Amino acid sequence: MASVLDDRITLRYGAGGRAMRTLIREVLTAGLARDDGADEVGLAAMDDGAAIRVGDRWLVVTTDSHVIKPAFFPGGDIGRLAVSGTVNDLAMMGATDVLALTCAVVIEEGFAREDLVRIQRSIRDACAEAGAAIVTGDTKVMGRGEIDGIVLNTTGIALTDAVVRDCGLRAGDRLIVTGTLGDHGMAVMARRHGLELEADLRSDVAPINALIRAVLAAAPGAVVAMKDPTRGGVASALHEMAEKSGVGIVIDETALPVRAEVRAAAELLGIDPLHVANEGKAVLGVRPEAVDAVLAALRAQPLGEHAAVVGRCTADRVGAIVLDTGFGRRLVAEPEGELLPRIC
Amino acid sequence: MASVLDDRITLRYGAGGRAMRTLIREVLTAGLARDDGADEVGLAAMDDGAAIRVGDRWLVVTTDSHVIKPAFFPGGDIGRLAVSGTVNDLAMMGATDVLALTCAVVIEEGFAREDLVRIQRSIRDACAEAGAAIVTGDTKVMGRGEIDGIVLNTTGIALTDAVVRDCGLRAGDRLIVTGTLGDHGMAVMARRHGLELEADLRSDVAPINALIRAVLAAAPGAVVAMKDPTRGGVASALHEMAEKSGVGIVIDETALPVRAEVRAAAELLGIDPLHVANEGKAVLGVRPEAVDAVLAALRAQPLGEHAAVVGRCTADRVGAIVLDTGFGRRLVAEPEGELLPRIC
Repeated sequence: MASVLDDRITLRYGAGGRAMRTLIREVLTAGLARDDGADEVGLAAMDDGAAIRVGDRWLVVTTDSHVIKPAFFPGGDIGRLAVSGTVNDLAMMGATDVLALTCAVVIEEGFAREDLVRIQRSIRDACAEAGAAIVTGDTKVMGRGEIDGIVLNTTGIALTDAVVRDCGLRAGDRLIVTGTLGDHGMAVMARRHGLELEADLRSDVAPINALIRAVLAAAPGAVVAMKDPTRGGVASALHEMAEKSGVGIVIDETALPVRAEVRAAAELLGIDPLHVANEGKAVLGVRPEAVDAVLAALRAQPLGEHAAVVGRCTADRVGAIVLDTGFGRRLVAEPEGELLPRIC
Repeated sequence: MASVLDDRITLRYGAGGRAMRTLIREVLTAGLARDDGADEVGLAAMDDGAAIRVGDRWLVVTTDSHVIKPAFFPGGDIGRLAVSGTVNDLAMMGATDVLALTCAVVIEEGFAREDLVRIQRSIRDACAEAGAAIVTGDTKVMGRGEIDGIVLNTTGIALTDAVVRDCGLRAGDRLIVTGTLGDHGMAVMARRHGLELEADLRSDVAPINALIRAVLAAAPGAVVAMKDPTRGGVASALHEMAEKSGVGIVIDETALPVRAEVRAAAELLGIDPLHVANEGKAVLGVRPEAVDAVLAALRAQPLGEHAAVVGRCTADRVGAIVLDTGFGRRLVAEPEGELLPRIC
């Protein structure tokens, strides 16, 4: 079969959707994925991170490079984003106690020291919120025109007794989102395009490992899949979860928590909030009997107060995400890529 | 005390020397370094990586972003460099069995797919040489003019029973280099400047964890400090080791292994090979009674065949690196920064 990849890498290959997954599968991980040990999660799984057996526990590892533009946006900055994104990827695998973070920075020559200080303070504050510590780092400087601003890489490491995957859904399971959708992407988009609405829009960027810890404790074994809906939004997360689990998903549109100002901005731009990135939210797959316990645990915390049951898994239409609007049903497309480059 | 940092970040802050260490201390790690547990190695130590207690073992973690230009150079490419650099940083802390590597890639829009394939193959081959596996990754694409080519971040994780630090030297210890000096930096410099000598110059980039494993097994407890002399070369590595250990160091110039073609290129450019980066070498601090065992273990392997004892530690002139030329003595300056930007 001929490769479906272009000869040159374009922006859509980094945008979190189908094109990126093809690049990763056909080029970046070719010949690299070793045989995972029993139950181990490696490259081939393309989960939020990897899980490796260490004694009788699991070492969970995840890495992200952050290229967001602008580096400062309403509600956060690249430092807070880097720590939150990495902590949340660990949490999505059930690893809510962070053992260590690393932070490698690539800075453009001429970058203002005071901006670096601001970013560093955000990193420090987000680490404190997450109960995480940066243990080692790396510093590089590139010339003007060789890099635009700053790129931060964070890698996270955590130990856990039980790994939660993104493929554990079965028919009858419910889907819960931990809060309002689209806040991060719309805030960055508004700032980028100078929308008037900008004042009302703020990114939700936050570490949610403590929230997830509370949920897992409240309903042991009943949270069977998790994913943080970043690039590509909830639509992309649901597609991955459904495909990997071998189920269909029906979403109740009227149940989706979306702030009025996010909905207004999305309508203005003709964008579906399901396709917009979040940086402090999770999509949880939950056994039906545990829904009340999970919702109660979420709503008991500020970061989970807008949590809602938004859908359920079906045995038919495997891999399809169906939106029930109340008036009818339509398919939710998987984004080919993110609407906005450099969203995280 | 007023900060000695400039208001804008310049290239020297990423160059591995004194300026970079000041930036890291005054800005990047401010308020981040937690109190290390007993014997733990954290941010404050500014070692090659961090070491964290996990049960009765040590989890060693290191991270590096690789920005080398050109991405392909005689003897290697950015993929081989990323894997080798990270594996070697782990090995320098005594952790020679790699548990996991992560690899995050930031690619310029328009980057040729075939170049990406070449780099990925180098990553795969270097992993095989090191007995290491990449377990998770991240992919971002930035626009033209937003990044120059490709930036790779690799983070390495390993478990070890005993950590080797870079501060364990005492008077009387010997210093051993595992092979010829300056090969990587001179090869890249020659390629960059189009020197005629280029054909004879090749980077030494290689994972040396197996070599270090053999040495540690041959002389248990006798290798008391290790460092890989990358940015800033052997001069920078020796300065850090001497300062942290509280010793002086005398180097025998006639004992330094330097290839004739490297020496010729260095003389042509007026550069001291001690200041030139290496990517497949280590500087070892060894108790005097174990020197023969360490040398024998090194020379038994191709990557260590040119190993040599090059100096010894003194109780006086703490922090100074003295070069004994055979005709007299002079101080070896610590480089303020690397001679060449984007060397690794």
